[in-house]
Amino acid sequence: MRIIVDAMGSDRHPGPEIQAAVEAVRLFGDEIILVGKEDVLRPRLEALGPDAAKVQVVHAPEVLAMTDKPATSARRKAQNSMAVGMTLLKEGRGEAFVTAGNTGGAMANALFRLGRLRGVKRPALATRFPTRKGFCVVLDIGANAECKPEYLLQFAVMGSIYAAHVLGVQNPRVGLLSNGEEAGKGNDLVKATYPLLEKSGLNFIGNVEGKELFNGDADVVVTDGFTGNVLLKGSEAVTTLIIDTLKEHLMASPRTKLGALLAKPAFAALKGMLDPSETGAAPLMGVNGLVFIGHGRSDARAMLSAIRAARQAVDHDLLEKLAAGIEARLPMMQVSRSL
Amino acid sequence: MRIIVDAMGSDRHPGPEIQAAVEAVRLFGDEIILVGKEDVLRPRLEALGPDAAKVQVVHAPEVLAMTDKPATSARRKAQNSMAVGMTLLKEGRGEAFVTAGNTGGAMANALFRLGRLRGVKRPALATRFPTRKGFCVVLDIGANAECKPEYLLQFAVMGSIYAAHVLGVQNPRVGLLSNGEEAGKGNDLVKATYPLLEKSGLNFIGNVEGKELFNGDADVVVTDGFTGNVLLKGSEAVTTLIIDTLKEHLMASPRTKLGALLAKPAFAALKGMLDPSETGAAPLMGVNGLVFIGHGRSDARAMLSAIRAARQAVDHDLLEKLAAGIEARLPMMQVSRSL
Repeated sequence: MRIIVDAMGSDRHPGPEIQAAVEAVRLFGDEIILVGKEDVLRPRLEALGPDAAKVQVVHAPEVLAMTDKPATSARRKAQNSMAVGMTLLKEGRGEAFVTAGNTGGAMANALFRLGRLRGVKRPALATRFPTRKGFCVVLDIGANAECKPEYLLQFAVMGSIYAAHVLGVQNPRVGLLSNGEEAGKGNDLVKATYPLLEKSGLNFIGNVEGKELFNGDADVVVTDGFTGNVLLKGSEAVTTLIIDTLKEHLMASPRTKLGALLAKPAFAALKGMLDPSETGAAPLMGVNGLVFIGHGRSDARAMLSAIRAARQAVDHDLLEKLAAGIEARLPMMQVSRSL
Repeated sequence: MRIIVDAMGSDRHPGPEIQAAVEAVRLFGDEIILVGKEDVLRPRLEALGPDAAKVQVVHAPEVLAMTDKPATSARRKAQNSMAVGMTLLKEGRGEAFVTAGNTGGAMANALFRLGRLRGVKRPALATRFPTRKGFCVVLDIGANAECKPEYLLQFAVMGSIYAAHVLGVQNPRVGLLSNGEEAGKGNDLVKATYPLLEKSGLNFIGNVEGKELFNGDADVVVTDGFTGNVLLKGSEAVTTLIIDTLKEHLMASPRTKLGALLAKPAFAALKGMLDPSETGAAPLMGVNGLVFIGHGRSDARAMLSAIRAARQAVDHDLLEKLAAGIEARLPMMQVSRSL
């Protein structure tokens, strides 16, 4: 397998990217193409020994900064590392592209370089939330701050295909994120999306709230990218707050310290479940190529998980399944103009 | 002090309400007026001994169900327990009204019975989120699923007054919930609200995400009621998931069980910080009366916390401070029609 990795994406690039690339070669025997400033990457790679020699470098002279406007930067900085990486992907030089760069930039570059799958109005970023029973795929988590009901319907289709083929869920249950379980609850977007999902032929279970989501009552939850992003970041932040507060109180006395030591396996199990670097990266579904976007804060472990997530999608033919699944549902996915 | 309590609001009414009312008499020496079906309430109160005799009962023959449409039920079920309770509040028979009934119903009844404070377009429901440094007031958490920039500006004013006078925060820092910290990030509502907050004269610190909120970087965070509700319920649900998962793993072996026993003080401290029943109820700010809305799932302890929250607001003259603070900012709070 060959994975293309943006070496200039994470906040601390290119360290995490380089380390993860070498580790991926070591672990999976993959070929990794690192895209970024060659003069920066080469010497650092060479210092890492024989496995690093199997990492290819493709030069990209420009880097997308957080301050770059996504919409224009894809064109203006045509030689940015995402653009170069996605062009390689389009040319078939690799099977998936992984970046920890900014979401807006990745979306803009992907639309410009790869285009959308036929029938898709807006690509969506999907991530897995840990639940009581396993995972729930939530989309969109940030690619589209403003959405139309039709987009959410399409997200539901793409999320279902992902859950079915990558997570192996039979007939995935689809929930609509709302501020109340009852039908009729929600903002205007939710209220207009509900009937579309009802008649979609998908396994729609109605509105869901945080409780149902984290209980594992749904396999796929759809929402607009603004709400999904707020939910994701809020959940991550409250998790960090809980873990940190607990740590602090556990270190407060010799008694609780000893308790913490004995209880270590329980904490390790919890950490494994909640750690965002276990999820690694979110697929940008609906573009014509496998693009995975990781956290800007990714360290080497998170970048490796991102590569692992991309490999998994390649293994499950996610792109082909998405294209075929959407194609099969084309009439249902197009909603009349009035919406 | 005299607090009016809806006896028919919580999912398991009237048990939690009756217990909390009797406990409030005992603890605070308050007079409590329980509003609900007299024939149900009287015998249950009488069984509770002498303190219960100090709880007054005012009869309300109707109960708002979760299935009742808020907008029409305030008028159609004119004798529902919320309507009767709020009428008592308006007549000055008590200083605050507490209910664990449904938010939409409370909002509709409050608008119909109490009206709004001068200058307020939409009342908002505010709650306190625990943070690394104390509390953050978040509003709206569910009264208005659809909002305009002007509403969020008004929420910021009300939240600041609450933080200043009830929580004792000097010059409260106001954040705007968004999917990115940078100015310019957000959905259309956030983008249009940002400049209003910038020139509001409030201590606006810009966009905030979950991380800043739970870090305690803001004292007040404003958002629309849909997003706020999703964030609140998501945070609660992930907290429950973490605590439950940890418990389960702690009970998995004798070693971790012993660890849990020793670490008990740390868990107790964490629980105290996160327990929603410690917060009790959310003030519906912007209506002409002190109305507190608790969780439908409230037990007696949560109902007692709700009464405590209402007492605290009475003690701090919240209604008068809101009226005066809004009055002083009237020109700033009215945004031209074009928004």
